[in-house]
Amino acid sequence: MICVVVEHLRFLATLALQKSGVPQADAASQADLLIEAELRGVPSHGLLRLPRVIRRIENGVADPKSRGMHIWRRDAFLEVDGQCGLGPIVANAALDLLMERVVKTGVAVAAIRNSNHIGMLGWYAECVAARGYTIIALSTSEALVHPWGGRKAMLGTNPIAIGVPTGGHPFVMDAATSLVSMGEIHDHALRGVPIPPDWALDAAGNPTTDAAAAKTGSIAPFGKAKGYALGLGFELLVSSLAAAAIGREVTGTLDDTSVCNKGDLFIVVDGPVRDLQQYLQEIRMAAPAEGFAEVLVPGERGRLLREERLRNGVLLAEDLWEQIRELAATDDVPQN
Amino acid sequence: MICVVVEHLRFLATLALQKSGVPQADAASQADLLIEAELRGVPSHGLLRLPRVIRRIENGVADPKSRGMHIWRRDAFLEVDGQCGLGPIVANAALDLLMERVVKTGVAVAAIRNSNHIGMLGWYAECVAARGYTIIALSTSEALVHPWGGRKAMLGTNPIAIGVPTGGHPFVMDAATSLVSMGEIHDHALRGVPIPPDWALDAAGNPTTDAAAAKTGSIAPFGKAKGYALGLGFELLVSSLAAAAIGREVTGTLDDTSVCNKGDLFIVVDGPVRDLQQYLQEIRMAAPAEGFAEVLVPGERGRLLREERLRNGVLLAEDLWEQIRELAATDDVPQN
Repeated sequence: MICVVVEHLRFLATLALQKSGVPQADAASQADLLIEAELRGVPSHGLLRLPRVIRRIENGVADPKSRGMHIWRRDAFLEVDGQCGLGPIVANAALDLLMERVVKTGVAVAAIRNSNHIGMLGWYAECVAARGYTIIALSTSEALVHPWGGRKAMLGTNPIAIGVPTGGHPFVMDAATSLVSMGEIHDHALRGVPIPPDWALDAAGNPTTDAAAAKTGSIAPFGKAKGYALGLGFELLVSSLAAAAIGREVTGTLDDTSVCNKGDLFIVVDGPVRDLQQYLQEIRMAAPAEGFAEVLVPGERGRLLREERLRNGVLLAEDLWEQIRELAATDDVPQN
Repeated sequence: MICVVVEHLRFLATLALQKSGVPQADAASQADLLIEAELRGVPSHGLLRLPRVIRRIENGVADPKSRGMHIWRRDAFLEVDGQCGLGPIVANAALDLLMERVVKTGVAVAAIRNSNHIGMLGWYAECVAARGYTIIALSTSEALVHPWGGRKAMLGTNPIAIGVPTGGHPFVMDAATSLVSMGEIHDHALRGVPIPPDWALDAAGNPTTDAAAAKTGSIAPFGKAKGYALGLGFELLVSSLAAAAIGREVTGTLDDTSVCNKGDLFIVVDGPVRDLQQYLQEIRMAAPAEGFAEVLVPGERGRLLREERLRNGVLLAEDLWEQIRELAATDDVPQN
């Protein structure tokens, strides 16, 4: 592992994207999203995705210049055809429109199809809640999760993020409806370490502790039947409203060559804002149970980690660092 | 247990509510909600709540005639002061307004405070989705759930229901963010049966298998840290937007004498409607894992049970049946 100063990473990641034809401001946004994930300790959504973003642009399944087509189908319902644009570029353009509209309507929805990987949902929730709005963000993915009681993957990892203004730092929770991420399983496989028996099934649909076997199988939903019900609810909600692909038809967030056909959904509310800090402070100060050092408020460990890493730099695998440097290496000054 | 024909139950429950001053149509709605829970196998939200509704009216903390005050704070944001009205009466009045409004706005939100227990959220989701709209329904409750890693109850059971039109029967999922309901713990205590070790903590915040001790303690969130994050997100979202009580301040869904100050939130969307039946059929037909007889689609077991019970009647505890008969017994014809 190598420790890299954040501003250096930001510069190189932005440059690498500009070299691929992404306009400077959009390149900075896409780089920010990946770096925010590194800062908050979510490397599965971090810079390891940068080479893929660039290969997808080279392969013509991601359009470096598109911001998507945003159409108000109703006063507060924004239909978004991402037109193969980069996930955060299309999403941020949608969120800007929603935040403008909710001042009049109180609530507005964006349903996004045909946009690339949106990355860490919590980032959007944090940005929107920091501006005083409440947000629910949903997204779907390739089928990686088996139904509770099933043998094969039929659902995406279908994360949800909720952002709420609190009077202090926004509250942000961000969690997939899978028990673990496929990234964690790949990480165990890479290190040759077995996975716990309840994490995943192999390709035949039998429980396995072999991480390599789980890679071609399916992940359990979190929270058994309830988490499955929730993940399925999100799958239906998002794919229906966004007119996006569903279940095993979804492609394009894990490969370099397929159009990305999953859906994203944002619900932004301009409602009463309230001071929630006392309640959150009571939770932080609550006596921890046996075996716990403290009671955590979701999102806050990531925020502390972020501050530490902004000061001290981000740890990256050396080969990833090498890749980023190569992707950014250039004799030309980018012309966009 | 005694088996009672549904229409007879409906008649008596409606009559009992009319006797307490609830207008006939509203009495029928409130009775329907409780009976739907019995039909779908959710007795914790069923007729055992009828005597409490009536005692709360007698004690002046539920207003039998109020439908609440519904004000459009923005084009698509409905602020609802329930004015101590019955949960389903205030909620249905709000949903009628939302379904009218979304035809123009595409999405609309109702944030409800000061309304009584809303009952089984899935019922609302089913009614709205059956009319072609997509819905997310949230509600809070008394603090019964401990934060993950905490010792005492600081969160409501905070259920979510999602309803999505499918082209056939609507998809409806409805789940609390607690691992189990307090009703299940009471049921174990009543039968003198121990509870599993991960269900609950006692009043001192230590794990217990003694159901009686758990009654004065706290329930675990479902799905460990993720379910806690979700339940806390819902608590903040609902109480903030509805300007309702939060955490341990919440009262009035489990007692007969306190004003009910929790919040409810409905998000209704009039978006593209899609045929989701093939996907749901693939899930139903999927090979079950070892130890499972079949793969279930959430809500469908309850729907089958409902059909069976509509034909064959509902099983009720004899003392509850006796109470309902007494509450409905009258020499007068109700005058409302």
